[in-house]
Amino acid sequence: MKVTIQNVLDKLMEPVPELARTVDILLTGNKETLVKGIATTFLATHDVIQQAIDLGVNLLITHEGLYYSHLDRTGKWTSDPVFLEKKRLIEQSEIAIFRFHDYIHMYEPDGITSGLIQRLNWETYIEKDYKAASILALPKMPLKEIVSYVKDKLQIPYVRVAGDLSLGCKRVGISVGYRGGNENSIPLFHQDKIDLLISGEGPEWETPEYVRDAVQQGLKKALIFLGHAESEKAGMEYIAQKIQTLFPSIPVHFIEEKPVFEIL
Amino acid sequence: MKVTIQNVLDKLMEPVPELARTVDILLTGNKETLVKGIATTFLATHDVIQQAIDLGVNLLITHEGLYYSHLDRTGKWTSDPVFLEKKRLIEQSEIAIFRFHDYIHMYEPDGITSGLIQRLNWETYIEKDYKAASILALPKMPLKEIVSYVKDKLQIPYVRVAGDLSLGCKRVGISVGYRGGNENSIPLFHQDKIDLLISGEGPEWETPEYVRDAVQQGLKKALIFLGHAESEKAGMEYIAQKIQTLFPSIPVHFIEEKPVFEIL
Repeated sequence: MKVTIQNVLDKLMEPVPELARTVDILLTGNKETLVKGIATTFLATHDVIQQAIDLGVNLLITHEGLYYSHLDRTGKWTSDPVFLEKKRLIEQSEIAIFRFHDYIHMYEPDGITSGLIQRLNWETYIEKDYKAASILALPKMPLKEIVSYVKDKLQIPYVRVAGDLSLGCKRVGISVGYRGGNENSIPLFHQDKIDLLISGEGPEWETPEYVRDAVQQGLKKALIFLGHAESEKAGMEYIAQKIQTLFPSIPVHFIEEKPVFEIL
Repeated sequence: MKVTIQNVLDKLMEPVPELARTVDILLTGNKETLVKGIATTFLATHDVIQQAIDLGVNLLITHEGLYYSHLDRTGKWTSDPVFLEKKRLIEQSEIAIFRFHDYIHMYEPDGITSGLIQRLNWETYIEKDYKAASILALPKMPLKEIVSYVKDKLQIPYVRVAGDLSLGCKRVGISVGYRGGNENSIPLFHQDKIDLLISGEGPEWETPEYVRDAVQQGLKKALIFLGHAESEKAGMEYIAQKIQTLFPSIPVHFIEEKPVFEIL
């Protein structure tokens, strides 16, 4: 069976009504090209693109954009050699790159959040799925145990934790990516009576300082920031498995990167 | 000499032409109140406010806002018990709280950036001051040594580092607070030929991923995220010293907080 890039994108976007505004476009390549190999990744770094090329992939599906800007506003660094060298690698290889961000987040439930919860083996504890967060009722566990469990399941070397480390957690909110910011995450603490929020990242003066104040007032609350990639890559691995099921004759890979930061 | 809150604010805002839009307002209290004691801080947490009250301070000067939102958009959590309890503490004590953010950043050079560079003892290496960043030419130092030096001078337990740890750094950009984001920080690498950027924080898919790509392409570049508070608190301590000089008869304190995150 011959499969075009358009066929793959149609399948990926099918579960969601067409979005009027979206960053999900074919960034490079041609929709009529026949697909030889597919890879998904959290963010197509220079190395990830090179690995995809080496694997014979001609359709790379990336959750975050190529050039360090969510809306691809790159005007201030289009003459930067790093930008130009990455562009050269992509053009030379003729690899097609699809940004798959908004549609997977609009799956019901959110495909990226689901991927994370599945990886944590917590599906049975889901109480409620909001558009941008899920609420779970776990068997009561000390925060430190949750931290170890999460690091182990996600295979990540560290997390950033705010709040009371002696906390026993039962009600947990999960908001992936940059959804750790105030608007999306602070209301969950009161409205959904969560003890702990697990998120990707967010501004430090927002949710982390809310949690600090709560603890200083004697409330037992905590926050784990996994890292943006660390909170979303399971979702991109999960979508690779799904694509493999949809197109069994095409080799499908998930390409992983190291954490972008080391702690020193 | 009798000093009102208005007198102090006038002195603090004097170096900058009046800003049409600013978050720098007296959040609580009355401008005609006589000042008995002053404290500055990075962000007035619940504990910081309590400490200020205990010190006999009736004017607390905070760089970041009280309720987890830069623009004080707190509609979604005004009925949250953490918000209400903090508000109660402030109202009961009648402490005046002034947000001092935009004006100090508009000092020439930026008062917060200056405070940090002064604390690092790097004033003599300044090559250029932009509005939102400074460029320094340091004697060549391995990145790891810079990391140790910075942690020691700022007394902070960890930093997040992206890039090549074997880097020898000479040209360093400094952009405090949330200025680690793409628009402000990425252009410095090419335009000012910096090896290393030291900043507070910023979205993980922006400057950190730029640095990762650069390193993967064989360029020697690095990024240190100090933490938002860790990059700005020296500036607020520096302003406390300045206020003490301006008003020698009034007790002036700088109140410090612990880092909002632990690394686990």
